[in-house]
Amino acid sequence: MQSDLTINTDLARQILTGFIHSEITRTGFTRAVIGLSGGIDSALSCFLAAEALGAENVLAIRMPYKASSKESLEHAQLVIEATGVQSMTVEITEMVDPLIAKFPDMDHQRKGNIMARTRMIVLYDQSSAFKGLVVGTSNKTEILLGYSTLFGDSACAINPIGDLYKAQVRQLSRALGVPEVIVNKAPSADLWVGQTDEDELGFTYEDVDRLFYLLIDQRYTPAECVEAGFPEGFVRKVVSRVRRNHFKRILPPIAKLSNRTIGYDYLYLRDWGT
Amino acid sequence: MQSDLTINTDLARQILTGFIHSEITRTGFTRAVIGLSGGIDSALSCFLAAEALGAENVLAIRMPYKASSKESLEHAQLVIEATGVQSMTVEITEMVDPLIAKFPDMDHQRKGNIMARTRMIVLYDQSSAFKGLVVGTSNKTEILLGYSTLFGDSACAINPIGDLYKAQVRQLSRALGVPEVIVNKAPSADLWVGQTDEDELGFTYEDVDRLFYLLIDQRYTPAECVEAGFPEGFVRKVVSRVRRNHFKRILPPIAKLSNRTIGYDYLYLRDWGT
Repeated sequence: MQSDLTINTDLARQILTGFIHSEITRTGFTRAVIGLSGGIDSALSCFLAAEALGAENVLAIRMPYKASSKESLEHAQLVIEATGVQSMTVEITEMVDPLIAKFPDMDHQRKGNIMARTRMIVLYDQSSAFKGLVVGTSNKTEILLGYSTLFGDSACAINPIGDLYKAQVRQLSRALGVPEVIVNKAPSADLWVGQTDEDELGFTYEDVDRLFYLLIDQRYTPAECVEAGFPEGFVRKVVSRVRRNHFKRILPPIAKLSNRTIGYDYLYLRDWGT
Repeated sequence: MQSDLTINTDLARQILTGFIHSEITRTGFTRAVIGLSGGIDSALSCFLAAEALGAENVLAIRMPYKASSKESLEHAQLVIEATGVQSMTVEITEMVDPLIAKFPDMDHQRKGNIMARTRMIVLYDQSSAFKGLVVGTSNKTEILLGYSTLFGDSACAINPIGDLYKAQVRQLSRALGVPEVIVNKAPSADLWVGQTDEDELGFTYEDVDRLFYLLIDQRYTPAECVEAGFPEGFVRKVVSRVRRNHFKRILPPIAKLSNRTIGYDYLYLRDWGT
């Protein structure tokens, strides 16, 4: 049941800042826009973007809802101060509440999705105004679990941290100097008061990261993970989540009618025709 | 310069209704949600979905902004009546205007994107409430040109009409009985008063469909399209649009660090592991 999630932080830092710089400049841009939640993932993306592009070329946006914790806002401010990036605060309450008001029976999940997607709208609007690409803040653990809102917090132009498990996000964040209070706090989407990721998921990031290391990186079957010591119920639960949320990791299927269909046999890599 | 965009409408109808039915039922759903703009593309998707799933299993949503034309709303109503689907009208003005008000210098483009994305929010919220998948309404011409709002009108769970050029959408719509007034009117995103697609694009759908048929289906090079009789400036303009909007047809790139990165070497088809 041993697994090694440790990364070479110097190398990762170099690759990820290089990635941000080259992906943004190749499209003719020089700037980035990032939604800062106050959590560790967006903090790390912001540190990387500031280093890659220069702090003056990064716009960090705080987008509180009326129920968001004051602490989240303060932690986002710590990141802004530590990196020296440009910043803006756009409260989303007035945009979100009219829709919630139309459906009085709306549950937490629906409200949370509306908030996450409203933040995407603000972020992409500022992407246009600031002429900067939206830098993503979803880590590998979250993407595999589908623990995000489609077209919401997962929406971005490029994602520098999508190949880092949560534990690796923590390791790299420490190496880059993300404030300890952010690195150490319990991860939360802060969509409602008292929400924590681990409560909602029903397992810890530590456990699921170790499981993913075997399942994904080491290509273990679920049965082999159980043999390696993981509880069967836990393995089944995680594998089921990964499958169930597969749709969030692909483009929507298009019905095929012609001999060259977008996404199937009309496919180019990014350097289209050049 | 001859091209044949004509399709076998009986066969297309059978394939596309089969696609909708199988893609929705395989994921355990039985219902669909569609945003009805009053235009031909969403009308066709709605006709196909109603036939595939039964009208009672389709929820069509009209989402006018205060500046939307009354005609759009009436045309959407014609589709609702002709198909017998369930319907709902959610005005987006109150959600959109607070953000527009924060940035007085906002241009038409930014406003239009906010509207398109707000409609996505309403649609996905109803997808959750109605337990139906969002059926897409983007055609092949539009997807290639990138003439849509990312995470806005292009957002969907499945897209039955994404392999049909605009001319083919018209042909199939006529065969399915979409009201003639909708089939014959000038296409418009209706994001501002008087907007028409062809004015904004600077060319007609008829011309660009014929060009795409050579470029995409027949694999002509741009130079060969010019030899075939298309004006060079037009070819250059279209090819440049297709390339520039390539990012809308792919998932955001993730920086690669591990030996199995989501989207690169951690890839599964829809039937994940089964």
